[in-house]
Amino acid sequence: MDNSVLDISGIRNGDIRAVSGALSLVESGSPGQILELLQSLHPFSGKSRVLGVTGSPGAGKSTLVEQLARRYICSEKVGILAVDPTSPFSGGAFLGDRVRMQGLSTDPRIYIRSMATRGHVGGLAPSVIDALTVLSAAGYASLLVETVGAGQDEVDIIRAAGVTLVVLVPGMGDDIQAIKAGIMEIGDIFVINKSDREGVEQTRREIEALLSLADVTAGWTPPIVETVATTGEGIDELVSAIDDCRSYFLSIGEARKREFSAHREWLERRLSEEIMDRFWRQLEPAHLQETVRRLVDRRVDPLTAVRSLLERGLSKPLVGTSKLELENEKQT
Amino acid sequence: MDNSVLDISGIRNGDIRAVSGALSLVESGSPGQILELLQSLHPFSGKSRVLGVTGSPGAGKSTLVEQLARRYICSEKVGILAVDPTSPFSGGAFLGDRVRMQGLSTDPRIYIRSMATRGHVGGLAPSVIDALTVLSAAGYASLLVETVGAGQDEVDIIRAAGVTLVVLVPGMGDDIQAIKAGIMEIGDIFVINKSDREGVEQTRREIEALLSLADVTAGWTPPIVETVATTGEGIDELVSAIDDCRSYFLSIGEARKREFSAHREWLERRLSEEIMDRFWRQLEPAHLQETVRRLVDRRVDPLTAVRSLLERGLSKPLVGTSKLELENEKQT
Repeated sequence: MDNSVLDISGIRNGDIRAVSGALSLVESGSPGQILELLQSLHPFSGKSRVLGVTGSPGAGKSTLVEQLARRYICSEKVGILAVDPTSPFSGGAFLGDRVRMQGLSTDPRIYIRSMATRGHVGGLAPSVIDALTVLSAAGYASLLVETVGAGQDEVDIIRAAGVTLVVLVPGMGDDIQAIKAGIMEIGDIFVINKSDREGVEQTRREIEALLSLADVTAGWTPPIVETVATTGEGIDELVSAIDDCRSYFLSIGEARKREFSAHREWLERRLSEEIMDRFWRQLEPAHLQETVRRLVDRRVDPLTAVRSLLERGLSKPLVGTSKLELENEKQT
Repeated sequence: MDNSVLDISGIRNGDIRAVSGALSLVESGSPGQILELLQSLHPFSGKSRVLGVTGSPGAGKSTLVEQLARRYICSEKVGILAVDPTSPFSGGAFLGDRVRMQGLSTDPRIYIRSMATRGHVGGLAPSVIDALTVLSAAGYASLLVETVGAGQDEVDIIRAAGVTLVVLVPGMGDDIQAIKAGIMEIGDIFVINKSDREGVEQTRREIEALLSLADVTAGWTPPIVETVATTGEGIDELVSAIDDCRSYFLSIGEARKREFSAHREWLERRLSEEIMDRFWRQLEPAHLQETVRRLVDRRVDPLTAVRSLLERGLSKPLVGTSKLELENEKQT
């Protein structure tokens, strides 16, 4: 896709086809194309409220996101990103979610998009940030990022959010608690969804116990809100808990701190991507193959192998692609 | 820790303290220290059989690993790595596993170790490969790698294994199926553990349905084995399914292909780590901070920010640490 085809003013006006094209580029364009797109859109982004929603599969995250979206579209346009940091093989789960959200997707004030891992060596997090930049520049004032899974990649993705909900359900066993533990520390608000089921009090106690072990973020004690997303019960309380959290984070500078971290992480990943791309292009692929073969056969040791590839790949300056290469250009 | 303290001959003789020291260095040493250790041990590694065991929490992976270990120690020394690719916060889950395996850990022919994510920016996978190198050089002929979670990191880790088991239990709901989908494609053998429970046939049908969608690895159709790890039922069948798979993969060159991939992946991560470390040391931290601040404030756009940091960081050749830097030394 050529960037000149991208309709920047269309994106800024919220034209759906233009926005979809930009998000496709974010997912599968070259680094140069993506950075050129961001150069046009970044100045107009950053004013949206970003809410992260995570939790175990089956906790009802999609229904909860749908309920929140229905509240927010009363006053502003809403963008939803459903991010799947696991293998492309599990796409089915999100297809299901999209079907469930179909009632929403016909509403022109709402935009729903799934993103999956395929082809993202450095993790999905930088692409999610870029997608948020596009949607923010397109006028989506509320952005909801829903992720599934419990790996490091998910934690990185959700860190781009201003406020993060962790959604649990009552009556899950100890083992399920274990996998959730990984996401406890990123929750600003805990939601016990399906709270019409038995075991709400026990789940509340378990959350409180886990929270007592975690570091408190910036003096904020995460509230625990009970909801039944399918009926809308507790959604009012959740919306106001989100507002409270957001106001507090804004007042103490936590909101800015998070935006700073997300941008730094983004910069580090993009730089690493570009530098390693340059490095690999300076090594003949046959030389790498041969080195790996010698390693497997124990004919070279790891230290010598690393040294020799470094020497070859760094023997010339690391020059880049036309859009990124070092040239005499005006400095910022 | 100074490498000179490391007792290479102690490690090779399987001295537990020497092995533990080497694994600690693999987990938290500098790249130079780790590569120097590998230089000594790598020539003696690579002869062990590596079995990966993964699956959802609560599937009984640890008990299954314990049963397999009890079989293998009849003929050879066994090393177990329990790897947790989720946040350090979830350490508790593995503490539990280690307690459960305590019956084994007093046996001198067995070595059990947990590894967690803390501090590993590039993921755990390269460290796991290094730990396998250490254990293999120390004479552990059977290596069992157990992981939990379902993210990309886990998939990378388990790819270092010659044969991978995916452990499921009967009667899990659709939503649990969804998170498991991500690991379906890396399974060489599927184990339905706790097969004395109801729903075995349905789980078998679900696995078969998912497998029919996946690419078949090298002409191998993954068998589905039913076990009750707590009683030892089905373990004989599992052991022979593992042997069959290993023989087949050896005969068609799949074993070597996997070792090649694991080593290439390892080299790429180590090179990336080293090159980016050199890059960051050539940038003043204050300059990075200022660039991030300007990005957040929309005073610079992403393309210009990336270009300007590349120009600064690559203005001089990327020289390294004393153990790795480019010098006149004998080439391999």
